[in-house]
Amino acid sequence: MKPYVIGLDLGGTNSVFGIVDSRGEIKATTAIKTAGFGTAEAYVDACVEALGIIIEQVGGIQTIKAMGIGAPNANYYKGTIEYAPNLTWAHNGIVPLADMFSERLGGIPVALTNDANAAALGEMVYGVARGMKNFIVITLGTGVGSGIVVNGQLLYGHDGFAGELGHVTMVRGTEGRLCGCGRKGCLEAYCSATGVARTARELLATTTEPSILREMNPEDITSLDVSIAAGKGDKLANEIYKFTGRMLGEACADFAAFSSPEAFIFFGGMVKAGDLIMHPIVESYNEHVMPIFRGKAQFLVSGLDGASAAILGASAVGWEIQ
Amino acid sequence: MKPYVIGLDLGGTNSVFGIVDSRGEIKATTAIKTAGFGTAEAYVDACVEALGIIIEQVGGIQTIKAMGIGAPNANYYKGTIEYAPNLTWAHNGIVPLADMFSERLGGIPVALTNDANAAALGEMVYGVARGMKNFIVITLGTGVGSGIVVNGQLLYGHDGFAGELGHVTMVRGTEGRLCGCGRKGCLEAYCSATGVARTARELLATTTEPSILREMNPEDITSLDVSIAAGKGDKLANEIYKFTGRMLGEACADFAAFSSPEAFIFFGGMVKAGDLIMHPIVESYNEHVMPIFRGKAQFLVSGLDGASAAILGASAVGWEIQ
Repeated sequence: MKPYVIGLDLGGTNSVFGIVDSRGEIKATTAIKTAGFGTAEAYVDACVEALGIIIEQVGGIQTIKAMGIGAPNANYYKGTIEYAPNLTWAHNGIVPLADMFSERLGGIPVALTNDANAAALGEMVYGVARGMKNFIVITLGTGVGSGIVVNGQLLYGHDGFAGELGHVTMVRGTEGRLCGCGRKGCLEAYCSATGVARTARELLATTTEPSILREMNPEDITSLDVSIAAGKGDKLANEIYKFTGRMLGEACADFAAFSSPEAFIFFGGMVKAGDLIMHPIVESYNEHVMPIFRGKAQFLVSGLDGASAAILGASAVGWEIQ
Repeated sequence: MKPYVIGLDLGGTNSVFGIVDSRGEIKATTAIKTAGFGTAEAYVDACVEALGIIIEQVGGIQTIKAMGIGAPNANYYKGTIEYAPNLTWAHNGIVPLADMFSERLGGIPVALTNDANAAALGEMVYGVARGMKNFIVITLGTGVGSGIVVNGQLLYGHDGFAGELGHVTMVRGTEGRLCGCGRKGCLEAYCSATGVARTARELLATTTEPSILREMNPEDITSLDVSIAAGKGDKLANEIYKFTGRMLGEACADFAAFSSPEAFIFFGGMVKAGDLIMHPIVESYNEHVMPIFRGKAQFLVSGLDGASAAILGASAVGWEIQ
């Protein structure tokens, strides 16, 4: 067996590459911006250029067995990215990304999975889900993603697109926030990084609570600013986390009715806030979940470093290709 | 292998037994009322008394290999019924029903599954889901149940209770209808038989639309009355189905984001209304589902006779016991 696979964590903002050995050690990494490309071809060109340098560092393409990609709206069965709302070069069609990379990388096999599915594989192989057969990873980033593991297997559904829990509807009817997917009231519209920033703007506009965030131009506030303010004990920032956490907990109560996981694992920058976000999640979950599920599921924070976890998860997909 | 298994369809209202051969032919049946027993022991006593007669008809207990039970709130892993809101003798604790039947039936192996899971097994083995690996059966009866099949396997989750889709929250906050599970706004509170009757009473009270149903005492209206009125072209009855169907379609849109099934299969008395209920389901689903899932899933009505399907499904659980 060749000693390395390439793992690609393809996010809405950055594309991070790692060359990984069979023990999960990352031997070389590089990254490019994901946005700013008009076509998928231009994006792949830029990727291959960046990859060429680190492939040479580990001994050339002949040392590479395969490539695994974690990406939004990825179709595992077909190796495509389809109608990804957060990717300018794939928001309006079907991009055969696995084949495009394979052709540019000497024909090595390439497999794609949802970026959140890759994170779930990473948790199962290297992280807090080791030994678990039924769990859900929820990724809180530019979007809200999920990787659902059932009976020890990723849930792909009949078309490869299962596990889009960021797009269950939390606020029904016309008053729901507009989501990147074109619909209203999705979990993602409230609990993603952009959703948190929007909650901040709404609370600043509708309350008179003093806050460090009032010193900023409301349009410039990001989830990172909320995080920094919360870390300083800012009461309004804590309210924002409480609102976000309570909605996540209510969503998890519905997810329990679906697949009754033994753990919900949260992943992404927002969970660095620790109890500020996790406490409202658990409290709201226990208020809203069916009595038969109450108190059964663990609520865990990913123990893996953000970028590495996604790369390792993507690499796990690569190792699995025959 | 012994030639027969017992299948028990344990519903909130009736308990229907069938003795089934290996080809799925029902050789003998009997039934008792489920309600009206103060304890699980009294219920099992009455079951065994009724079963004794049909067991003798097929040649005695030595011809019976096993028993499979489809029941609400059934724990497949433990053989128990736990906190079932619709069963007076099991709504407040854990009943080891599999062991209780086994002891009373000469030690034959007995397995329990959710009544809706049993229906799903029935559809997979004998019905419209033959050959499918990812589908969801939704049962519309006294409650709203579901059997979720993923990768050709029933989804049980870590504790055996997965697939309680009747208890996802459709109306959030305090204005949701009180559900039998003690929570508010569950799908079941709107789309079960009792939910439909309640919708009828609400529409009669809040509109002036003429209707055959106005000739009845509102408190006496059942889902069957709504069905009969709808069959006669009653406009208000059709509005009730439209409301019910649209909510089911909106729920299925969320379920697609979870497991992306190739089909949703509806089961129970209400689906006899055909297009009156199915058309609003599909229309609402396509309005609410994520674009990547739109138009992909089939919406099917169970082709199996109600009572037989559940018995055959329960018997399939019995055949599987080693």
